[in-house]
Amino acid sequence: MDERKGLKNRGMEREDVDDRRKAVSELTEVEFDAIASYPFDPSAAKSNIENMIGVIQIPLGFAGPVLVNGDYAQGPFLIPMATTEGALVASVSRGMSVISASGGANVKVFSDAMTRAPVFRVRGVEHAAEVMDWVNSHPGELEMAVASTTSHGQLLQVEFYPNGRSLHLRLSFGTGDAMGMNMCTIASEAICKVISDNTGAELVSVSGNMCTDKKPAAINSINGRGKTVVAEVTIPKDIVEAKLHTTVDAFVETNTRKNLVGSAMAGSLGFNAHAANMVAAVYIATGQDPAQVVEGSNAMTVAEEVDGDLYVSVRMPSVEVGSVGGGTKLPAQSEALDMIGCRGSGMAPKLAELVAVTVLAGEVSTVGAQAAGHLGKAHSELGRPSR
Amino acid sequence: MDERKGLKNRGMEREDVDDRRKAVSELTEVEFDAIASYPFDPSAAKSNIENMIGVIQIPLGFAGPVLVNGDYAQGPFLIPMATTEGALVASVSRGMSVISASGGANVKVFSDAMTRAPVFRVRGVEHAAEVMDWVNSHPGELEMAVASTTSHGQLLQVEFYPNGRSLHLRLSFGTGDAMGMNMCTIASEAICKVISDNTGAELVSVSGNMCTDKKPAAINSINGRGKTVVAEVTIPKDIVEAKLHTTVDAFVETNTRKNLVGSAMAGSLGFNAHAANMVAAVYIATGQDPAQVVEGSNAMTVAEEVDGDLYVSVRMPSVEVGSVGGGTKLPAQSEALDMIGCRGSGMAPKLAELVAVTVLAGEVSTVGAQAAGHLGKAHSELGRPSR
Amino acid sequence: MDERKGLKNRGMEREDVDDRRKAVSELTEVEFDAIASYPFDPSAAKSNIENMIGVIQIPLGFAGPVLVNGDYAQGPFLIPMATTEGALVASVSRGMSVISASGGANVKVFSDAMTRAPVFRVRGVEHAAEVMDWVNSHPGELEMAVASTTSHGQLLQVEFYPNGRSLHLRLSFGTGDAMGMNMCTIASEAICKVISDNTGAELVSVSGNMCTDKKPAAINSINGRGKTVVAEVTIPKDIVEAKLHTTVDAFVETNTRKNLVGSAMAGSLGFNAHAANMVAAVYIATGQDPAQVVEGSNAMTVAEEVDGDLYVSVRMPSVEVGSVGGGTKLPAQSEALDMIGCRGSGMAPKLAELVAVTVLAGEVSTVGAQAAGHLGKAHSELGRPSR
Amino acid sequence: MDERKGLKNRGMEREDVDDRRKAVSELTEVEFDAIASYPFDPSAAKSNIENMIGVIQIPLGFAGPVLVNGDYAQGPFLIPMATTEGALVASVSRGMSVISASGGANVKVFSDAMTRAPVFRVRGVEHAAEVMDWVNSHPGELEMAVASTTSHGQLLQVEFYPNGRSLHLRLSFGTGDAMGMNMCTIASEAICKVISDNTGAELVSVSGNMCTDKKPAAINSINGRGKTVVAEVTIPKDIVEAKLHTTVDAFVETNTRKNLVGSAMAGSLGFNAHAANMVAAVYIATGQDPAQVVEGSNAMTVAEEVDGDLYVSVRMPSVEVGSVGGGTKLPAQSEALDMIGCRGSGMAPKLAELVAVTVLAGEVSTVGAQAAGHLGKAHSELGRPSR
Repeated sequence: MDERKGLKNRGMEREDVDDRRKAVSELTEVEFDAIASYPFDPSAAKSNIENMIGVIQIPLGFAGPVLVNGDYAQGPFLIPMATTEGALVASVSRGMSVISASGGANVKVFSDAMTRAPVFRVRGVEHAAEVMDWVNSHPGELEMAVASTTSHGQLLQVEFYPNGRSLHLRLSFGTGDAMGMNMCTIASEAICKVISDNTGAELVSVSGNMCTDKKPAAINSINGRGKTVVAEVTIPKDIVEAKLHTTVDAFVETNTRKNLVGSAMAGSLGFNAHAANMVAAVYIATGQDPAQVVEGSNAMTVAEEVDGDLYVSVRMPSVEVGSVGGGTKLPAQSEALDMIGCRGSGMAPKLAELVAVTVLAGEVSTVGAQAAGHLGKAHSELGRPSR
Repeated sequence: MDERKGLKNRGMEREDVDDRRKAVSELTEVEFDAIASYPFDPSAAKSNIENMIGVIQIPLGFAGPVLVNGDYAQGPFLIPMATTEGALVASVSRGMSVISASGGANVKVFSDAMTRAPVFRVRGVEHAAEVMDWVNSHPGELEMAVASTTSHGQLLQVEFYPNGRSLHLRLSFGTGDAMGMNMCTIASEAICKVISDNTGAELVSVSGNMCTDKKPAAINSINGRGKTVVAEVTIPKDIVEAKLHTTVDAFVETNTRKNLVGSAMAGSLGFNAHAANMVAAVYIATGQDPAQVVEGSNAMTVAEEVDGDLYVSVRMPSVEVGSVGGGTKLPAQSEALDMIGCRGSGMAPKLAELVAVTVLAGEVSTVGAQAAGHLGKAHSELGRPSR
Repeated sequence: MDERKGLKNRGMEREDVDDRRKAVSELTEVEFDAIASYPFDPSAAKSNIENMIGVIQIPLGFAGPVLVNGDYAQGPFLIPMATTEGALVASVSRGMSVISASGGANVKVFSDAMTRAPVFRVRGVEHAAEVMDWVNSHPGELEMAVASTTSHGQLLQVEFYPNGRSLHLRLSFGTGDAMGMNMCTIASEAICKVISDNTGAELVSVSGNMCTDKKPAAINSINGRGKTVVAEVTIPKDIVEAKLHTTVDAFVETNTRKNLVGSAMAGSLGFNAHAANMVAAVYIATGQDPAQVVEGSNAMTVAEEVDGDLYVSVRMPSVEVGSVGGGTKLPAQSEALDMIGCRGSGMAPKLAELVAVTVLAGEVSTVGAQAAGHLGKAHSELGRPSR
Repeated sequence: MDERKGLKNRGMEREDVDDRRKAVSELTEVEFDAIASYPFDPSAAKSNIENMIGVIQIPLGFAGPVLVNGDYAQGPFLIPMATTEGALVASVSRGMSVISASGGANVKVFSDAMTRAPVFRVRGVEHAAEVMDWVNSHPGELEMAVASTTSHGQLLQVEFYPNGRSLHLRLSFGTGDAMGMNMCTIASEAICKVISDNTGAELVSVSGNMCTDKKPAAINSINGRGKTVVAEVTIPKDIVEAKLHTTVDAFVETNTRKNLVGSAMAGSLGFNAHAANMVAAVYIATGQDPAQVVEGSNAMTVAEEVDGDLYVSVRMPSVEVGSVGGGTKLPAQSEALDMIGCRGSGMAPKLAELVAVTVLAGEVSTVGAQAAGHLGKAHSELGRPSR
């Protein structure tokens, strides 16, 4: 009983949370006020956290409206963004204003699959080849293994990466409305058991890091993870001048020297100005996994002059979002998803489109500001802490 | 007057926030309850966000206690983590329990500098060389430019990357207690003006992407950005077996096949299991910039057997944190910083140490669980949404 | 007529070569003796070079014998290596002696496809999707285009990488006995014409750099280019000690700290000690393209202890070799190919196996030498120029 | 005596070479004619190869003349290129003709240092810090260690990369006229002994792969290795049209979509069309190490319109060449070096400049050809083997 008090309390009723927080407060001699204030029953978060003592409040603003011409997202949207970085929402809103004045952003989801990449220990190259042969000739067994764990997920592809006594597989799944990492992990374990039982390959880890989850990795940039989305806008020359206070040429030059050449010289996988800012703010607002901002930052921004106007696009090969599961069902996050009509079944591609358009808006604004020479000024006026 | 109502209201009093939220509510036909509930005066967030309509609540738990032997952090700590990923806090706590039972984690900050990398347009290689010569022979002018913008920051190093008609500079600054990105940006602009005025090099962008901020980039892994921190623990063999339910050999093998070999095959900059999870949770809890989780995920976990025991280390070359500025001064975030004694002056290195130790704990736990064969089980019991 | 004399002479008879060399000699005031000495009719090289004035002689040695257990290469081989780096052949021979004493190296070709990746200009994301749809629904047209250019090559796969107004395709071909780069280029141009004619996509370049030919690139490490080959050997503990003068543990530790950890920290795509040395020497000896040493250096060496013995493997995802075409038909190169039974039809996979085994031998020797502490000594005794 | 016959003969007199070749001939049943034909005393190659049985002849052509405005190379040059790839010399010559007609290429060496990066085993982070402190406070000991091994090399910089129980150092040396790899290795071993003796750090390998030699690595792209060289040319609009049969705009667009965007999408470290071709051909002609083509391929080609004309540059951060040592002293290679006045003392920077200009020429020609739509045609007319 004593064991289940204070720091050791594992309950998720409000009184448990209060009990733990009080214990932490005594131990650390910190008075918790803000952390203790939240408007929901903590048992609603029982699949989201352990040892809960309260919440952190992240300021929420809206950017937009932005006009979107997607396959899923159509019309004007106000985008929820949770951030503590001053000037970010204002900057994105400026980009959205430019986009809307230009007729909106086009956006398209080009592929959609979540991956998990187990690693097996094999006896060597001959055994690796045998395991690969077995897997290739028993697709039914793999599908059955998946079906035993999920009704939403389906196995789309298996890729092999033999390497001495390690055999890495990269499994791609359709995961429906969920971001799907847990679904894939559980289905992959079932697959791995079948493979192991039939081939003698020994599972080392259900994640052998070729997935690649929450680490920057070329495999995601190249082969995609989650949703591959491309958004674009053509901004008429006069809007560039009137609203961005720069020229088409200056924008293209800035983007090339900075986002293409500079990133290349830095050995970067992110060829953009600050995609991670928009990704983080929308992910936090909508209950996505903020550690997957890492993959979300794998974005490439390209700018070119087309018939005198400015064309800007962002390619995002690894947008990992869900409209169900994870943090999406927490109260504030649900409301934020509702703001953009992205809560619940069938909404994940729409959410991915809106993430990409928000990134596009942030890129248009920031590259535009740098082209116009006032990046620093914006920061010092709006966002710089008063010290 | 009308202009400043509803969506166009730019105020940061609570009534302004309410006014905007009401406008959004009407437009989107969403009832906002949770978002509207927060325990602080929104004007406290006026340098953190624009268009504020409320907050997102992220559940906050604590992991630990963990025993730390750092140069700054010493003794047991309860680490605040804000997350919506079930099982994460429990897993990290398990790792911390192992670390503490093993006598604690050692941790050290090896370097500390924030960078900004402007790009200039020059006339070609000869001009690039002239600009470089001028900069190298006028350190005083650069220092004066910095001093004119900040009393906390100081210029530590200038590196040159000439490339045709682009000349990239990477400026490294000491930024004291702040993460320092804005400080660096403003100081860099002052430096750029001096360089431009004296050499005719034309500033294209104060950030030419070799900084590299919020993008995965080898330059940060190699040369560091923010704080380079290494944490380590030696776990006695019997603790590995009793608490991690695996063996030293199995742990080392899992780590090698997954974190070293698998990441290498994926073209990754992150040689770890899930550093980004811990980085994101601590960053969000303590008011850091969640977009910098990208750089935080540049971590390498190494495991080896030493005299029969298990040695595990994490190298984090780009931990970008501050104990002042940004989101650190918001009420809940301040309380979380207080929990670990990291609020205010002089606390940034301590915070960096605790981030690294938390990552170490998460790695110990997850690699240990995979070595013991129960990664998926942990997820399905604790964290998997009930669908 | 005058036009066709001296430097402007475009002929490939011996007298043309002499004429050009004489002109160069007069212009540069250099006496050419060695360059002028070669034992073949220069018209044999007319598809290999222009402006020929003679030859460069690269010393040729043999390494081995090495015992090979491949699917194609079986038995003992003496490997031809052309190099100017002292100690290289001796070192590889030492590794081969160890391999042979251990029962030989296993080796397997896991995949085989040459790639070319054209880039088209499209009108935007919608057009990109249309082009992709057209290509996916007209496989016959593509195959016919290929068939019109080659009877040896066949199209195996088409991958799409849409990015704003650029649409990159990566085409994979079976190329039979040839390395196949030219075959792929010509077939790709035919494919591109068909696509362009039917979709309005405008071909920008038949090589949009996602091929990726002769540049280090993660896409080749991950998805392979040419042949993906893995070679392995298990070296009994006593042979490690007797012949490599080190221990299994020291070898594994050296390999891990150097080839895995060190390469990871360097942001490298090559996780090996010096694969490029062996690749270059065998490529030059056998008439392969030495610029493709770049992709050949994408190798990963893994060492582990298995039941007390030493297991070492090398994974080479991009071995681009042919047994016909290119430099293979020149006299000395033909003889070198004959030495290993790799000249002419059907021999490319065998050659790839032997390249991988040679790399394995070089890795065993060099990592072994470093583990035994005598890398530098070997260099100073054998290879160091006498200055 | 018998032991020293046939395959076991280790001599380097012509009769030893003949004896070995005869043994290989008998064993492999191959008649060696071409390989046996070479115009020099093989003892001249005794520090270049072991088990020599003859030579491989690589056809040598000249490209140019090209007009060069470097700090070291000034005036017109005929560049020796050894290759078996048809069309390469012709293509480079075309680029050189364009460059010369445009007033020549500017070129500059921006930095010059060869690196070696040993890895030590330390006891953990505290020990790592102690070793770093010792090294930083004993520069004299390190310099003395270097001086004891070489009179040409000097230690320029020491960088530290602590990582758990591994401590990587990257040592930068000035190496005078030599490429300097052996010099650096031997000096590094002396340094390592001093460090080890004084700190207890145990040397694992004198090369811990952060050098990074003969592997593609971001550390070389970013921090440089050997010589960092940038070459450039401004090609007047009418020359673009008359000689390259394309337009400034088409050239810039092709370069951007291919060399910048495409390479970025491929996760490449090489942002160029085919730098490795030129590097390989010049390296082989002039006795450089062909395995270092790997680092040589780390080049970035940028094209932009300047005042209506075409500006093209190549940045090569890791040109590793020497004018003495290695293969440079072999007869044909010496003559090739003489052709460009790069043999012997003081000529290494000049050679690096000419390598970069040759790469520039090849890039101008190939990107130009692709912009003009005739890459494939060039290949099919000149270079395609007749099968």
